[in-house]
Amino acid sequence: MGSVAEEVLRRRLPGYRIVRHTVPGIKDLPGAAKRILSMGCEGVITLGWVGRREADKLSYLAASVGLIMVEVLTGKIVIDVTVHEDEAEAPEELAAIAVDRARKHAENLAALIREGPEALVKHAGMGLRQGYPDAGPIK
Amino acid sequence: MGSVAEEVLRRRLPGYRIVRHTVPGIKDLPGAAKRILSMGCEGVITLGWVGRREADKLSYLAASVGLIMVEVLTGKIVIDVTVHEDEAEAPEELAAIAVDRARKHAENLAALIREGPEALVKHAGMGLRQGYPDAGPIK
Amino acid sequence: MGSVAEEVLRRRLPGYRIVRHTVPGIKDLPGAAKRILSMGCEGVITLGWVGRREADKLSYLAASVGLIMVEVLTGKIVIDVTVHEDEAEAPEELAAIAVDRARKHAENLAALIREGPEALVKHAGMGLRQGYPDAGPIK
Amino acid sequence: MGSVAEEVLRRRLPGYRIVRHTVPGIKDLPGAAKRILSMGCEGVITLGWVGRREADKLSYLAASVGLIMVEVLTGKIVIDVTVHEDEAEAPEELAAIAVDRARKHAENLAALIREGPEALVKHAGMGLRQGYPDAGPIK
Amino acid sequence: MGSVAEEVLRRRLPGYRIVRHTVPGIKDLPGAAKRILSMGCEGVITLGWVGRREADKLSYLAASVGLIMVEVLTGKIVIDVTVHEDEAEAPEELAAIAVDRARKHAENLAALIREGPEALVKHAGMGLRQGYPDAGPIK
Repeated sequence: MGSVAEEVLRRRLPGYRIVRHTVPGIKDLPGAAKRILSMGCEGVITLGWVGRREADKLSYLAASVGLIMVEVLTGKIVIDVTVHEDEAEAPEELAAIAVDRARKHAENLAALIREGPEALVKHAGMGLRQGYPDAGPIK
Repeated sequence: MGSVAEEVLRRRLPGYRIVRHTVPGIKDLPGAAKRILSMGCEGVITLGWVGRREADKLSYLAASVGLIMVEVLTGKIVIDVTVHEDEAEAPEELAAIAVDRARKHAENLAALIREGPEALVKHAGMGLRQGYPDAGPIK
Repeated sequence: MGSVAEEVLRRRLPGYRIVRHTVPGIKDLPGAAKRILSMGCEGVITLGWVGRREADKLSYLAASVGLIMVEVLTGKIVIDVTVHEDEAEAPEELAAIAVDRARKHAENLAALIREGPEALVKHAGMGLRQGYPDAGPIK
Repeated sequence: MGSVAEEVLRRRLPGYRIVRHTVPGIKDLPGAAKRILSMGCEGVITLGWVGRREADKLSYLAASVGLIMVEVLTGKIVIDVTVHEDEAEAPEELAAIAVDRARKHAENLAALIREGPEALVKHAGMGLRQGYPDAGPIK
Repeated sequence: MGSVAEEVLRRRLPGYRIVRHTVPGIKDLPGAAKRILSMGCEGVITLGWVGRREADKLSYLAASVGLIMVEVLTGKIVIDVTVHEDEAEAPEELAAIAVDRARKHAENLAALIREGPEALVKHAGMGLRQGYPDAGPIK
C-alpha cells in the first residue's frame, strides 16, 4: 500500500517533498501523523491493516479517534485508509482492495492539497468506493 | 443529501454565505468541519452515510466523537446527520430517509442560527423524528 | 423530562436564573452544554432519550464522552441523564422512569450547587437509584 | 467501598488531608476528580459500581476515558476502581470483591504518593489481583 | 515482559537512562506514560496484560485512546504493547507471546530513538508480527 500511495503522490504533486514513515502498529499512526505534520507537511495519508480479532477492532477504533484528534488539533488533512482482514477471504483479493484503496485515497489527498477543500464536491453522492467498484449514485 | 440541505440553508438563511465541502469518508468529517468553522462559519451540518459492517459502525463512533470534540472546542453548532444502511432494506426507502433527515436537520440548523439556542425548546418531548414520521409526544 | 427538571431546579434554587435549551439529538448535548456553561451557568443537567438500535447506543457513548469532556475542561458540574428505550417495554413505564430520573438528578444538581461537592456523601453506598426504586445499601 | 478506602488512606498517609466526595453516577467521576485535583490534592481514587446492562458498560467506557483524560491533563495520579455486577452472582461475594479491591488500590495510591512512581515495580508480573486472590507470577 | 524490554533497551541504547515504573492496572498506563515523558524521556514502551472479560476489553480501549492522546499531545513516541489472555489457551504459550512481543517492540522503540522516524520503512508490508512468527510479505 505504501509504495502505491507514494507513487500517486509523487506523480500528482510534483514539486512537493513526500515523506514516508513506517510504524510498528496501527495505534502508532496518530503519533507519527502528528510528528509528520509538525515537520511542516500539508497533509498525511495513513495506511493501516486491521486484523480479525476483537482486539484489532478496538485498536482500529482507538487509532481512528486519535487520527481525528490530530486532524482537529492541527487543522490539516489526515486521510486514514485501512484494510480489514475480514473484508475478503482470499489474500489476493485483500491485496487488490488494499492497492485500489491506497491509490484512490492518495488521489483524494493530492486533489485536496492541489485544489483545496472543494475539490471533491463533484464526487458527492456518486457512490464512489475505495477498494471496491463504485456503487453508483443514489437513485 | 448535500443538495437538499444546501437548498434549505439557502432558502432559510438569505444573506448568509453557504459553503459546501465533500470528504472522502465519514472519518474525514470532523477535520473538515473544523476547517470550515475556522474560515468563520457560524455552524456546520455534516451528512454521512454509514455502511453495515462492524468497521463502519466503529468509524461512525470515531467520527461522532470527533464532531462533538469540534463542537466543544469551537463553541459553534455542528449538527451531525447520518443515515445507516441497516435502517432499511430498500434503496429507495433509504434515500427517502436521507432526504427527510437532511432537510429537517438543515431546518434545525437554520433555526438555531437565526433564532439562537432556545429556538427548539417548543419541540422538546414532542417525539419529532428526522428520517421517519414523528413519534408524537410522550403521553 | 425537561419540565420536571426545570420545576425542581426553580423550586430548589430560588434566586438562580434557569436556562433551558433543546437540541436536535443527543449528540448535540455536549456542544450545547458547553455553550450554556460559557454563558456563566454554574451547572448543567442534560436529558437524553436513547433508542434501541446499535447506532443509538454508539451515539449515547459519543455523547457521554463529550459531556465528560465538557465537565473536565470547564471544571463545572454536568449531570448527564438518559433514558434508554430498552429499559422497559410499556411506554408509560418508560415515561415514569424518565420523570423519576429527571426529578432525582435535578435534586442532585441543586444539592451540589447549593451545598458544594460534599453534598451527596451521605447517600454513598445506599443503593439509591434514579428511575427505579432504591436498591438499598450493600449489606 | 468509600469507607474502606478512606480508612486505608488515613492510616497510610498520616498528615495528609483526605477529601471525600460522592457523585450521582459513574459518569460524574471524571469531573469530580478534576475538581478535587484542582483543589490541590496529589491523587484521587475513584470507586464505581457498574451494572449489567449494555448502557452501564458504555457508561463505564466513557467514564474510563474521562478519568484517563483527567490524569493525562493534570499529570497527577488517578486510580480508577470499579466493581462490575456481573463479576459475581451473590451480593455478598460482590461486596467482598468491592471491599478487597478498594482496600488494595487505596494501598497502591498511598504507596505511589509516599514512595513515588517506582513504588510498585517490585509487584510487576507477580499476578497480583485486586478483588480476587492473587494469580501468582507468570511462570 | 518488563525485564525483557528493559534488557533490550539497555543493550540497544547504551548511554541512555532507562526508567521503569509499574502501575496498578492498564488504565493507569497513560497517566504514568505522561509523567515519565514529562521527566524528559524520549520515548515510552508500555506493557499491559488484558483479561478475557468484556470489562477488560473496554479498559483496553480506554487505555489505548489515552496512550494515543499522550503521544499526540507530547509529540513523543509511545509504543503500546499488550497481550490479551484470549490469544492462547496455554499459559506457557501466552508467556511466550508476551516475551516475544515485548522484545520485538523494545527493538522497534530503540531503532526509532536511535535512527529516527524512518527507521522502520524497510519493514513495511513484510508481514512482521510481534508475539507470533512473521506472516511474510503480501504477495
